[in-house]
Amino acid sequence: MTTKSPTATLLISCPDQQGLVAKIANFIYANGGNIVHADQHRDEESSLFLSRIEWQLAGFNLPKDLIGPAFSAIAQPLQAKWQLHFSDAVPRIAIWVSRQDHCLLDLLWRYQAREFAAEIPLIISNHPDLAAIAEQFGIDYHHIPITRDTKADSEAQQLALLQHYNIDLVVLAKYMQILSGDFIRQFPKVINIHHSFLPAFVGANPYHRAYERGVKIIGATAHYVTEDLDAGPIIEQDVVRVSHRDGVADLVRKGKDLERIVLARAVRLHLQNRTLVYGNRTVVFA
Amino acid sequence: MTTKSPTATLLISCPDQQGLVAKIANFIYANGGNIVHADQHRDEESSLFLSRIEWQLAGFNLPKDLIGPAFSAIAQPLQAKWQLHFSDAVPRIAIWVSRQDHCLLDLLWRYQAREFAAEIPLIISNHPDLAAIAEQFGIDYHHIPITRDTKADSEAQQLALLQHYNIDLVVLAKYMQILSGDFIRQFPKVINIHHSFLPAFVGANPYHRAYERGVKIIGATAHYVTEDLDAGPIIEQDVVRVSHRDGVADLVRKGKDLERIVLARAVRLHLQNRTLVYGNRTVVFA
Amino acid sequence: MTTKSPTATLLISCPDQQGLVAKIANFIYANGGNIVHADQHRDEESSLFLSRIEWQLAGFNLPKDLIGPAFSAIAQPLQAKWQLHFSDAVPRIAIWVSRQDHCLLDLLWRYQAREFAAEIPLIISNHPDLAAIAEQFGIDYHHIPITRDTKADSEAQQLALLQHYNIDLVVLAKYMQILSGDFIRQFPKVINIHHSFLPAFVGANPYHRAYERGVKIIGATAHYVTEDLDAGPIIEQDVVRVSHRDGVADLVRKGKDLERIVLARAVRLHLQNRTLVYGNRTVVFA
Amino acid sequence: MTTKSPTATLLISCPDQQGLVAKIANFIYANGGNIVHADQHRDEESSLFLSRIEWQLAGFNLPKDLIGPAFSAIAQPLQAKWQLHFSDAVPRIAIWVSRQDHCLLDLLWRYQAREFAAEIPLIISNHPDLAAIAEQFGIDYHHIPITRDTKADSEAQQLALLQHYNIDLVVLAKYMQILSGDFIRQFPKVINIHHSFLPAFVGANPYHRAYERGVKIIGATAHYVTEDLDAGPIIEQDVVRVSHRDGVADLVRKGKDLERIVLARAVRLHLQNRTLVYGNRTVVFA
Repeated sequence: MTTKSPTATLLISCPDQQGLVAKIANFIYANGGNIVHADQHRDEESSLFLSRIEWQLAGFNLPKDLIGPAFSAIAQPLQAKWQLHFSDAVPRIAIWVSRQDHCLLDLLWRYQAREFAAEIPLIISNHPDLAAIAEQFGIDYHHIPITRDTKADSEAQQLALLQHYNIDLVVLAKYMQILSGDFIRQFPKVINIHHSFLPAFVGANPYHRAYERGVKIIGATAHYVTEDLDAGPIIEQDVVRVSHRDGVADLVRKGKDLERIVLARAVRLHLQNRTLVYGNRTVVFA
Repeated sequence: MTTKSPTATLLISCPDQQGLVAKIANFIYANGGNIVHADQHRDEESSLFLSRIEWQLAGFNLPKDLIGPAFSAIAQPLQAKWQLHFSDAVPRIAIWVSRQDHCLLDLLWRYQAREFAAEIPLIISNHPDLAAIAEQFGIDYHHIPITRDTKADSEAQQLALLQHYNIDLVVLAKYMQILSGDFIRQFPKVINIHHSFLPAFVGANPYHRAYERGVKIIGATAHYVTEDLDAGPIIEQDVVRVSHRDGVADLVRKGKDLERIVLARAVRLHLQNRTLVYGNRTVVFA
Repeated sequence: MTTKSPTATLLISCPDQQGLVAKIANFIYANGGNIVHADQHRDEESSLFLSRIEWQLAGFNLPKDLIGPAFSAIAQPLQAKWQLHFSDAVPRIAIWVSRQDHCLLDLLWRYQAREFAAEIPLIISNHPDLAAIAEQFGIDYHHIPITRDTKADSEAQQLALLQHYNIDLVVLAKYMQILSGDFIRQFPKVINIHHSFLPAFVGANPYHRAYERGVKIIGATAHYVTEDLDAGPIIEQDVVRVSHRDGVADLVRKGKDLERIVLARAVRLHLQNRTLVYGNRTVVFA
Repeated sequence: MTTKSPTATLLISCPDQQGLVAKIANFIYANGGNIVHADQHRDEESSLFLSRIEWQLAGFNLPKDLIGPAFSAIAQPLQAKWQLHFSDAVPRIAIWVSRQDHCLLDLLWRYQAREFAAEIPLIISNHPDLAAIAEQFGIDYHHIPITRDTKADSEAQQLALLQHYNIDLVVLAKYMQILSGDFIRQFPKVINIHHSFLPAFVGANPYHRAYERGVKIIGATAHYVTEDLDAGPIIEQDVVRVSHRDGVADLVRKGKDLERIVLARAVRLHLQNRTLVYGNRTVVFA
């Protein structure tokens, strides 16, 4: 009875009503499953029930390809949205970068240290600068330049690559280009990292403006990408203290350290199927 | 369907086995209850199942005094330890103090601000110093001096007061006396707050020694009291940064600020029945 | 040689140039002063020299009323802005409130605990609600209602009170009215506290919108008040983690806890003459 | 007037007395130096004056090799201990490791990103495991096995290597061996990183014991190495929150993340000559 054997994870949201936990738990129990994690949340504002349930596949009577269809019969009358994940299906990640390497290196180091239950077969960049790092880790690197005129073409190339490499998740590790709404609709699983400030500084040179304002704290936010730039559902945030002794370069350096950690945490939470998006927000079952 | 109507909360721990969630959820569903919160944890080291389930009493078919006996029939074959709490049964707290007022004042301010779903009818102290604060808040204050020779007598008086005031929880808000093992066995629901350091400084004058060691962080820990002084199950901890510019008096002041907040959080978690003790540790369903 | 004897503190800013530290230190040394704290900062962006120097008055050859004029001769050729404070001149604070009591109670508790080297003789409010707290602490409470039409009159009354009570510092402890530019020009020493979010939520109901956005961190900022609302020089900031389990009411409660602490820290830093404003930012010599 | 030109930094401690700041500042001013940073602290407990002063060498009248001798004449009557550092003298670091690579990789990444003003020509390990990383970064890797019987011999080899590579600072990046008192006396500039807990867990398997105790916070401490294991002067500390959902492996993983950051911060503070050790504590002028 260890969680190291393969598990199934159900992420589900539906209008709250009596008997939801019982119905889901009974489905698993009746088929011989042993629940190893169950977490439930009720959003008071929207009367929405949200849950994450993970159970062992060993001893489960249904074969993997029949679990979804079988659960569908339960989910439909509940008007539920749900996803089913298997821990032995290893997700495939593409990391997108521009010129900055701090997030890329951190992700690859954790990948090598087996912190992520995932494969990383592909790095895409609009610049050639980081190709050597990809080579060093034995990962394919595709340089796809972006100009205003070629953006649609470039996105078509990018989508083709994601399909070719069978990618499940795109991680924007300081990719300094905006994805089009069209792209997001075709490939919606994208995580981004960006700096955050108290107060916020919209527009150019935010670190410079944070310095001028004498902020005492800077932050970083990892979120799912939506068409509304930098305003998608938040997965993870963290902050670090700064003082008047920190020049703009120090703010940038401390911001990078934070971005590395916050992005890595967000990717890990996603890979463990601990994030459930509803509205423009995320429940993080952590 | 709001959680503001009265609820029942079940805290349960038992050896892990198939069907636990289903059995508990079915018991609630079969009796017409609507679960508003459910949280489950599996301790990998001990193969222990731990859960907190809260459901609405409105519409529940069993009267309150029959829920326990009815659930007992399910719990017994599972070898489960469990507690049942009702949100409309308001717990009664006694605050114990010595001479320092920071934690007492903070608790009373939060009490007045209705942050605690509890009554505070009693303050006990081994010193007369804080009687005026009790009077100001309209709370009975009992001064019970402690000497080495009278300790057993004093504890008998304290226990009699707890019984007389029908107390459910004792909060040691900087009560600088050690409770005897005998006392703890007779009244085991006691929360304490104490300072914590990285590294630890055992013995007298910890702030002075922390200063001498030049620590950069000081902390506070709130825990349930056991016979092993300051080593009971931890409910909540937090820290604050300090620097070489902080003298001993500054460490003490910052430590007090931390103690206020950490103790208040711990009391709140306890009152919401979010803490479940097993072994010498606590699951905090928060 | 203890800092408990009276001290003088010089806060100074001027264009950076050779010999500044020497000139200031010589002035103090030549007059028999012993420096107990000296802190200097150079703002790289503006080439500005900023410093805080504190020395013991015991043994200092100049009487207090001649120190300023004497230093003026040194400061003028340096084009310096400077302030001189004496630790035995106790500043007088007026706390302004509306209906929320959390910051007021926290400040008064710290006042009683002698955490502030200040007198608090006056509380002003646009509501009568908190008069009982003022009475309990033996502090005068003036209720001055504010309407759009009477704002100028009300501010005149407020200024008269500040003058009558000989007030040095106004602390807005959740005073929910905007001070006019006219008021600020006449009484510029005002500290305010407000919530902060990552990202920021401008406008009404920020906690509700932070909840809808699923933020993982909320913050509070204490700053000097300028004509530009909530955008004055920042003195202190801090944050607290929140999760999807925190409803709007929890965010508000956690925000209050943060506001209490951040405002108290800012007031303390100001009273210790550790804050030096330049441009729209603050050096905090802490 | 930019700090990017070479600077001299003086770190000094002596019994407090009148005129210290003036004497030091005059020495610099009289020789044509421009102070870019000056920070002073007075330890109340020991009446010790501690200061860090940095000034520009451009325009300074004394050649570098005469500054020390000249300052010596001022320092001697003050009974001062002092160090003089030049920003254009690049310190040389040896990193010592065992089998864990997280701190090594983080330091090398920052080295590559030019976060450290230092050279890293040497890695020493008691295991061969991390040789490939050294090769990848083009750094010499010396494998010196340690057994109880050969410890003295091994330390002699290590000291010879430090001399051969002209090393100024040893960073123990999870080097799991204890340095002898003899070694420390011959090479006293050593920084170590180790986990810290609230409360502390002395002895074997601290993460396992922290798990069993249900701690809510784990920490890491970077310190100078003294003969008293893990008890030398603290340079930097930080913490991270954990919960009951974190198994032992999660505590270890989160602890590693913390160790990387805390060690890197400590190395950076040391390289910037911001740390001044006195007694068993450190002033960090940051």
